[in-house]
Amino acid sequence: MDANPILAETVRGNWVENRHRGAFAIIDADGIIIASAGDIERSIFPRSAIKSMQALAIFARHADTQFHHSAEELALACSSHNGEDFHVEVAAGLLGRLGLSEADLECGAHQPINAAARAALRALGAKPSTLHNACSGKHSGMLSVSLAMGEPTAGYANREHAVQQQVRASVEAVIGEPLTEAKCGTDGCSIPTYAAPLRAFARGFARMATGTGLTPEMGAAAKRLLDAATSLPHLVGGTDHADTRIMAAFNGRVMQKYGADGVQCGAIRDKGWGYALKCDDGNVLAAHAMVAGMLLKFAEPDADQRAVLETIAHQSIRSVRGDVVGEMRSVGF
Amino acid sequence: MDANPILAETVRGNWVENRHRGAFAIIDADGIIIASAGDIERSIFPRSAIKSMQALAIFARHADTQFHHSAEELALACSSHNGEDFHVEVAAGLLGRLGLSEADLECGAHQPINAAARAALRALGAKPSTLHNACSGKHSGMLSVSLAMGEPTAGYANREHAVQQQVRASVEAVIGEPLTEAKCGTDGCSIPTYAAPLRAFARGFARMATGTGLTPEMGAAAKRLLDAATSLPHLVGGTDHADTRIMAAFNGRVMQKYGADGVQCGAIRDKGWGYALKCDDGNVLAAHAMVAGMLLKFAEPDADQRAVLETIAHQSIRSVRGDVVGEMRSVGF
Repeated sequence: MDANPILAETVRGNWVENRHRGAFAIIDADGIIIASAGDIERSIFPRSAIKSMQALAIFARHADTQFHHSAEELALACSSHNGEDFHVEVAAGLLGRLGLSEADLECGAHQPINAAARAALRALGAKPSTLHNACSGKHSGMLSVSLAMGEPTAGYANREHAVQQQVRASVEAVIGEPLTEAKCGTDGCSIPTYAAPLRAFARGFARMATGTGLTPEMGAAAKRLLDAATSLPHLVGGTDHADTRIMAAFNGRVMQKYGADGVQCGAIRDKGWGYALKCDDGNVLAAHAMVAGMLLKFAEPDADQRAVLETIAHQSIRSVRGDVVGEMRSVGF
Repeated sequence: MDANPILAETVRGNWVENRHRGAFAIIDADGIIIASAGDIERSIFPRSAIKSMQALAIFARHADTQFHHSAEELALACSSHNGEDFHVEVAAGLLGRLGLSEADLECGAHQPINAAARAALRALGAKPSTLHNACSGKHSGMLSVSLAMGEPTAGYANREHAVQQQVRASVEAVIGEPLTEAKCGTDGCSIPTYAAPLRAFARGFARMATGTGLTPEMGAAAKRLLDAATSLPHLVGGTDHADTRIMAAFNGRVMQKYGADGVQCGAIRDKGWGYALKCDDGNVLAAHAMVAGMLLKFAEPDADQRAVLETIAHQSIRSVRGDVVGEMRSVGF
């Protein structure tokens, strides 16, 4: 197996220090490859980069007609959020309407990703709750699916639970390929994650963006989710988050979502292209530099969009004293 | 240029998620390669993995005869420490004897690496000082060199300062190769770092371990530094630190020191071998798994040493809830 190409590197002073390899594919809904590099048939764990696909389960089981998810709640279902107050409130709001609480979330609690939110919690002497978990929006959405299915909510995060079976079926439908227990693990938020070829996730996002190959109902659901995420990008990431900044700059044209361990998925919606990218070594900053480099080349950014992407494709590395001593940068695009 | 081999990977569930490539060399003082993988001629930034080489400047300028560095102070000069109380005290003690204070350290301040030390500072409502910086021992040693040279201490961290010129000369003498401004950057603690072939650092540690190729004075200085570091490993890392655990287990036989961005250097002293290792992508956990895998194979560990190395060569990955969902592991050794 040949090594994937170097798609990001760090420079310190005048010398390259680290090299990050990866693969990416930009594909249309018919499976035509617009651009790619590396082994795009290798199965990758998509992690949180496909939360918008997983959220299709809300519509597949008509939880949406029963609980009337707002655009904010749909955007948060697609998010790995910063744990800021406005994220916590949206998740708590849906849980309240479901007659549930943060105690029903099975994602675990961690400190907010956003530093100011962390500091604010600490100043209150408060511990983070499951609502601060970056995945609380996705989990709240899954609880709505559980209620719509008439299933007990306890254990909804387990692989065997009907909710996760439905999430799996929704992802299989949109990527057009079966998922298998032979390539399965548990995500950081305790739900299952299934590995599949990088190419399949890229094509799945093209189908999400166009509706091609999906039932009309699934196509409409995909449009609602991508509309929600791209029009409310502060709910998908949060203050200063790279995904939020990219989506805000593109004003609906680009769906962009990172996943843990160096995954990036999304769509250049006006072109009908989906994309998937994986940094081989799992480095999240490198993966963001890579996807910014990819979008600079292939998303036809205007000057403002280009300016935003450049700040992500070239990230300063600083000393403890705060001096710029190097940079992480995308290469090869 | 061929890619370096995969020397560590992470598994989630039953599928490989991330791959970490790297190069390593184990070399004797005559330059004979005992074992290697990957491109060992590629120049790497050694970062903090060569602090014991940099500390040779203390002896080159007879700061040791003027200020009588204790074994603790020499070990701390070789360290990237956890910022625990016992580290802070050793650094503060040397500074006091020099007639200087933490205000003279030019490394910058950061939170202690050790979580309990961080929590204790926070509970006091105290901010970290330059003494908590992982490099405060090295910097205190450099200040002693500055005084011994009769140079102004202000600016001692700058590339042009006589102290850094001496540090560079000491490293050049021990690795037996010139360093160059053409491959130079600034380390996180604001001193210069020079890239040189990985092979040269490995051989340099063999020369440190044996004295071969060094002047008698430099050989004696190297022995004092390696004796200090390996006999006081809690000062080189700290509580639960991988380097500390490895050196404690080997009871003087192995010098082991990590550097930022995935560097590992050290010596299997009883065999007279030096080693250097670099994880291409800079991942520190992966680099620790790699060096543990390397020592398992080449350092002839006994059962207790093997047990310690195995816990570093195979590190659990946990979900937010704390369940084990995968592992980082060394491969290819």
